[in-house]
Amino acid sequence: MWRSHLARSLHQHQDQPEVKFLQLATVGIDQRPRNRTVVFRGFLENGDRFQTPLQDCLKIVVDRRSQKPEQIAENPWAEACWYFTKTRSQFRISGKLQLIDHQCPDLELQTARIETWQALSDPARIQFSWPHPREARIHFSKTDPPNAAQPLSTFCLLLLEPTEVDRLELRGNPQNRWLYLRDEQGNWTEQEVNP
Amino acid sequence: MWRSHLARSLHQHQDQPEVKFLQLATVGIDQRPRNRTVVFRGFLENGDRFQTPLQDCLKIVVDRRSQKPEQIAENPWAEACWYFTKTRSQFRISGKLQLIDHQCPDLELQTARIETWQALSDPARIQFSWPHPREARIHFSKTDPPNAAQPLSTFCLLLLEPTEVDRLELRGNPQNRWLYLRDEQGNWTEQEVNP
Repeated sequence: MWRSHLARSLHQHQDQPEVKFLQLATVGIDQRPRNRTVVFRGFLENGDRFQTPLQDCLKIVVDRRSQKPEQIAENPWAEACWYFTKTRSQFRISGKLQLIDHQCPDLELQTARIETWQALSDPARIQFSWPHPREARIHFSKTDPPNAAQPLSTFCLLLLEPTEVDRLELRGNPQNRWLYLRDEQGNWTEQEVNP
Repeated sequence: MWRSHLARSLHQHQDQPEVKFLQLATVGIDQRPRNRTVVFRGFLENGDRFQTPLQDCLKIVVDRRSQKPEQIAENPWAEACWYFTKTRSQFRISGKLQLIDHQCPDLELQTARIETWQALSDPARIQFSWPHPREARIHFSKTDPPNAAQPLSTFCLLLLEPTEVDRLELRGNPQNRWLYLRDEQGNWTEQEVNP
């Protein structure tokens, strides 16, 4: 359903590295919205077979020292907005976030965290060894890449488990729009709505 | 300060129509974040000379029947996230929203609303005559464009008045990042921070 449309949009932009950039909104501890660009790291595989099943989870990586962890602890809800320029499609993906840090005792989730670290590039991994984000600038020079097998303790995996998706296709006059809702049993329903 | 960097990014992408697309996050009445792509319609001109001065306001257009007006009435805070692919720059623009609808009694703001309507294209104006957004789809066909001089009552101007801007330049290893804060007197200060 919505995932097949998303997969098609991703496929049609595979020549553009920034196609994996999406905007993730959370609510700050001051109750103000926060919004930043993050990189889509694929869907969590076999999450439905986990001890605590997880469905359709988008993988994102996060620095434990960024503001997201404390925001998520207070309000786990998020909405990702993902716009595709060629297909002129927008996906608004709303759901709950789950942060997997180095202390997460769940073995399946900890394995997913480690595998996500291993799949990163050196330039992506090295960022987790930089000085504390958002603090006064320290002029640090290049450092060696960290161990590619074992994640740094600053490295967290962030899962967005969608419960509502709003798909807008700007092509066509008028435009076309669909809402997808997940029910308690994990089944998705689709409704076509006015744009 | 941050506006000159934003102007440069806009200039360097002037061949790409989607450069004016940014993601606007608000907080829903259910306290969950909401995030959608909107079109930047320029800065409000001479806002500093208004009876109630407004500074550096980004102009966005909104349908009164969308979910934004009721969200803004409860929580006027927003954060826009604007990513530029060529320059690899991200601007996170945080501030308060002000909705200018057809009943707004402030003459300067009402004039700004009308002028923004007049500056839209016919395809942009026509959307405000479509059936109620997010309701079950009505298969309507093309309609004539509305009066270009006088806005429809569904048309609102939305102003985002920034009080904090976070600029991240992904180019460079390490990356570069600055925070801009507006004080009570409306003056901006700049601080370089770790990415």
